[in-house]
Amino acid sequence: MNGAEAFVGTLAACGVDTCFANPGTSEMQLVAAIDRQHGMRAVLGLFEGVVTGAADGYGRMADKPAVTLLHLGPGLGNGLANLHNARRAGSPVINMVGDHATYHLHYNAPLTSDAMGVARPMSDWVRVSTSARDLAQAGAEAFAVAQSYPGKVATVIVPADHAWGGGSALVAPPTMPAPAKAPPEAIAAAAEALRQGEGPKCLFLGGRALREDALVEAGRIAAATGARLVVETFAARHQRGHGRVATEKLPYFGEQAQAFLAEFTTIVFCGTEPPVSFFAYPGKPSWLSPEGANLVRLASLREDALAALTGLAAALDAPAEPAGLQERRIFPAEPGKLTSSSLGAILAELLPANAIVSDEGATQGGAAALMCAAAAPHDWLQLTGGAIGQGLPLAVGAAIACPDRKVIALQADGSGMYTNQALWTMAREKLDVTTIILNNGSYAILNIELMRVGVQNPGPKALSMLDLRNPEIDWTSISEGMGVSAVRVDTAEGFRAALGEALAHKGPRLIEAML
Amino acid sequence: MNGAEAFVGTLAACGVDTCFANPGTSEMQLVAAIDRQHGMRAVLGLFEGVVTGAADGYGRMADKPAVTLLHLGPGLGNGLANLHNARRAGSPVINMVGDHATYHLHYNAPLTSDAMGVARPMSDWVRVSTSARDLAQAGAEAFAVAQSYPGKVATVIVPADHAWGGGSALVAPPTMPAPAKAPPEAIAAAAEALRQGEGPKCLFLGGRALREDALVEAGRIAAATGARLVVETFAARHQRGHGRVATEKLPYFGEQAQAFLAEFTTIVFCGTEPPVSFFAYPGKPSWLSPEGANLVRLASLREDALAALTGLAAALDAPAEPAGLQERRIFPAEPGKLTSSSLGAILAELLPANAIVSDEGATQGGAAALMCAAAAPHDWLQLTGGAIGQGLPLAVGAAIACPDRKVIALQADGSGMYTNQALWTMAREKLDVTTIILNNGSYAILNIELMRVGVQNPGPKALSMLDLRNPEIDWTSISEGMGVSAVRVDTAEGFRAALGEALAHKGPRLIEAML
Repeated sequence: MNGAEAFVGTLAACGVDTCFANPGTSEMQLVAAIDRQHGMRAVLGLFEGVVTGAADGYGRMADKPAVTLLHLGPGLGNGLANLHNARRAGSPVINMVGDHATYHLHYNAPLTSDAMGVARPMSDWVRVSTSARDLAQAGAEAFAVAQSYPGKVATVIVPADHAWGGGSALVAPPTMPAPAKAPPEAIAAAAEALRQGEGPKCLFLGGRALREDALVEAGRIAAATGARLVVETFAARHQRGHGRVATEKLPYFGEQAQAFLAEFTTIVFCGTEPPVSFFAYPGKPSWLSPEGANLVRLASLREDALAALTGLAAALDAPAEPAGLQERRIFPAEPGKLTSSSLGAILAELLPANAIVSDEGATQGGAAALMCAAAAPHDWLQLTGGAIGQGLPLAVGAAIACPDRKVIALQADGSGMYTNQALWTMAREKLDVTTIILNNGSYAILNIELMRVGVQNPGPKALSMLDLRNPEIDWTSISEGMGVSAVRVDTAEGFRAALGEALAHKGPRLIEAML
Repeated sequence: MNGAEAFVGTLAACGVDTCFANPGTSEMQLVAAIDRQHGMRAVLGLFEGVVTGAADGYGRMADKPAVTLLHLGPGLGNGLANLHNARRAGSPVINMVGDHATYHLHYNAPLTSDAMGVARPMSDWVRVSTSARDLAQAGAEAFAVAQSYPGKVATVIVPADHAWGGGSALVAPPTMPAPAKAPPEAIAAAAEALRQGEGPKCLFLGGRALREDALVEAGRIAAATGARLVVETFAARHQRGHGRVATEKLPYFGEQAQAFLAEFTTIVFCGTEPPVSFFAYPGKPSWLSPEGANLVRLASLREDALAALTGLAAALDAPAEPAGLQERRIFPAEPGKLTSSSLGAILAELLPANAIVSDEGATQGGAAALMCAAAAPHDWLQLTGGAIGQGLPLAVGAAIACPDRKVIALQADGSGMYTNQALWTMAREKLDVTTIILNNGSYAILNIELMRVGVQNPGPKALSMLDLRNPEIDWTSISEGMGVSAVRVDTAEGFRAALGEALAHKGPRLIEAML
């Protein structure tokens, strides 16, 4: 078999069954290999950021990698922003990036670029195959890296002559080691910190510590120690809602986050590191944990969060029942003109059990994020790396990974524009995604940030750079242009009707919520 | 003044008066500095590929750089593909890329990335400022690099604390040296090669050799020697049309290009290098020039093409009048169902004098490209680096650089989707751009390439990855959603009416041509 067939076959043998693709000429042998690979689904994205963002969403929900197919250095470049987010989420992703045939590179043809150089900044691991025979081996290695707990971004550069070269063979899937365990001393130190000392304590959770089973252990620890359970500001996948262990959320803005944490004398971290300010601001601190507090790392992002929390609960002789299960709560939605608050209340009320929410709601999505915590149980996925344009692709990937679950994309208008092409893939694949565009005609967060960084009296030119009106974007029109039926609403009643309608049917819909 | 003000002020003093922007929080001081900088225009793009592609189009038409404003490593990542194209075009571009404050980097906040690493593969020059005071100096250096003949991509990484730090001052604009000259020996060798030897000879032209004045010199050389004038396949800016020196075009596909060149015993290159195959194919050559031919470099892309051709014409004692001025020609447009051929004929007939055409027409645009060579005089801009998604942004930049000229974006549907957000900027800035979408519902070139790389009997999965139907994209709807009024046509008569209407008015329009 040729290199491409051995490569794709090896990935398939590893259990990789989904390819998000945006190929070009140099990837035609890979396209053909995927074509012939039984059980490998190919999903076309019309822009590479859709492809990589979908792979992230898939990885978060499937806990195994999809493979992307990208066209040389520039195609990979278009996918970098969402690879950055994927990497920050600890998502398993394998990229296969075509490149010129090795002997063609030195001719410096128009599409020649330093593909390795493009890959490195947003990959945990990069490798170029050394021959057609080596390609399958590179694939097996990439899988092992991508699947390492909780997940990594592994990129294989595939020279075209390695893809079409013959004499290749499948490579056996690697045996994956168990996730690294937090050392016993870390568990003992965390138990000691939570048992002793004065003042309020907090268990600060991120990464895989936000899965339902791990949260049960965290809830047991809370029951044993009175520690509060606080969740990192941007979580890759938080299983929450009615009947699950309730948590509090660290606010976004540094001052608020700092004030929130100020009272704690002990903070134990699991699945994440001590939080820092998202951006730097003149005269404001980057480090948010209180001075003098006892900061203890129970488990890093790359150590088994469930095992660490289970071990800690045992060390604390914690009761079997977790503290603080989330109650179902219905929030009143003010009638009339739609607001972020009434939108959030209605979404929380109607959110179906087992839904997946891709949250890139930004300023207007905050109320929904808060209220949905008390909705039916669901998975809440956030923008982990701050590179906007993730929400719609993430929803695509989540829907492919979980075809039987309703996916909601809660999407700010400004960020949504970056990867609006995701709507077309939703339509093509008939994905069960309801997209809610929060249309406020503005990069609203930047209007706030402009003041926060100390800019006084911004002029019309500055304000125009943060404004999305003139012309107003008509998302309904854009969505229908890509095959997703859409409706615009501007009242609470209209939103309730549109959301009810979308949830009652399978398939993609878009609701443009005018705020 | 603070670093941002000194930086922007220094660029303004260099003559940089246009900023294509997609800022975020870490760039707010730069936004404020642009706001206060008299004479600096700010143009918002809703995706970074629009921003960098527009800077390329601006640079090609203005022969001086615009500056981009991008948000950290991931924002720059989104702009890489069109920076690749800009670099391949030899366009002058300055990027200012915000980054975290220097002291904030080590906290590894969510948006932290290796911005230098992201910049390097697609920049000719990268520099991070070392202090607030150094920022203006970095700006002056970036200008000198960007403006070096014919143009380069220069990237400055701007840490936020350097932007807001005080005590900075303007730096004097650098004195730009004259473009490097081709050595006299090169001119003598080219003269010798064209004077002597048997068989057909060719002057192979690219880069700045495709400007009107340089082509006059090439035409004089042709008159003196009988050499044919051949233009590189993808030209950054070709001034052509009625009354200008006529040229022939090297075909795209390697076999055809090789056959085209086969008869020449002497090829003299000016403004470009010997052509190579765009991609590698099994068993097909990368090098396209005939074996045994005398290949002579008159001037590289980075040597003054006009001076070299003028010198060569003088060395050959060429007549004052160039050979082969292009005649005006009207092609018949078959009535009824619109085809790429009738579209090309109508466009060539109606193209206004002094128009600028951004050509990312791909397979369906070939006929128009050919026929417009005999249209009224115009500038024809092509996709230089093969990274698709360039055409609409390029049109934006060209229209900003040349507000009094009609811009036509001849845009394939598949490539157009990558940066469809450019339409919104056309609407906001009321740019005089007529976009013609060539809608064939396919990555048509890939269907051809699939066969050319030797894939036999592709299955439905492979074909689906090259197909843009299911659902069909409605560009009219997308365009109107972004504020550009649009019309769909499928007959020659309909296209003629729509194009006539668009050309008769100022401002953005879109014609969706169903092919």
